[in-house]
Amino acid sequence: MKRIVVLLLMMVSMTFSLHAQKQEEPGKVLRHVVLFKFKNESSAADIKKVEDAFRTLPSKISQIKGFEWGRNNSPENLNQGFTHAFFVSFQSEKDRDIYLPHPAHKEFGKILGPHLDKVLVVDYWTEK
Amino acid sequence: MKRIVVLLLMMVSMTFSLHAQKQEEPGKVLRHVVLFKFKNESSAADIKKVEDAFRTLPSKISQIKGFEWGRNNSPENLNQGFTHAFFVSFQSEKDRDIYLPHPAHKEFGKILGPHLDKVLVVDYWTEK
Repeated sequence: MKRIVVLLLMMVSMTFSLHAQKQEEPGKVLRHVVLFKFKNESSAADIKKVEDAFRTLPSKISQIKGFEWGRNNSPENLNQGFTHAFFVSFQSEKDRDIYLPHPAHKEFGKILGPHLDKVLVVDYWTEK
Repeated sequence: MKRIVVLLLMMVSMTFSLHAQKQEEPGKVLRHVVLFKFKNESSAADIKKVEDAFRTLPSKISQIKGFEWGRNNSPENLNQGFTHAFFVSFQSEKDRDIYLPHPAHKEFGKILGPHLDKVLVVDYWTEK
């Protein structure tokens, strides 16, 4: 009887643990879209430093599975002052949760901080 | 002599036309990032109608070379109310210029309009 209770407890515990880790979505990717508007007083060199610092993150944080970025060139004038987009991909929410407080990410924040006017972040699981 | 002038004119015209079309960036993709915040009074069914309408655009506008979308699930609370991201890829600025005023895109605008609280658009050529 005791053995059955232990077995049942193990099964319940495994179910919970599986549930907790069900953060991957087969065939989908978790996108992390980051937009920056820099301060007017930030120079081109200041901004380049931020771009370059962000670009080093994929080599420092193994959870980053995809990375690209670029400067806004939309003719629609709906960018609300945001000039830079960084597009980071993860395989799971767990990986994103490691990325966000990662020391290398925090280091980047120190380089970004003095030049940041505003930031916008949207994450999404890819749908077709 | 006349023939030479005609030939020269053709060459000049070809050069200009090549230049005008030099909007592709080898190895790069032009991303078109669109964020929506819907009105509070818009129902889940209203929003689904907008999602579904956007999803039909790639089949109607051949200039769209890539498409994905998703609902914000960022834990950072930096999404400024935006709940939906649509991520459209083009091969050239010319293709984007065809997309923007395309009748199918305008049709979509009519479905979106009544439910749109705010929109943000950033386009960028992919950098690594």
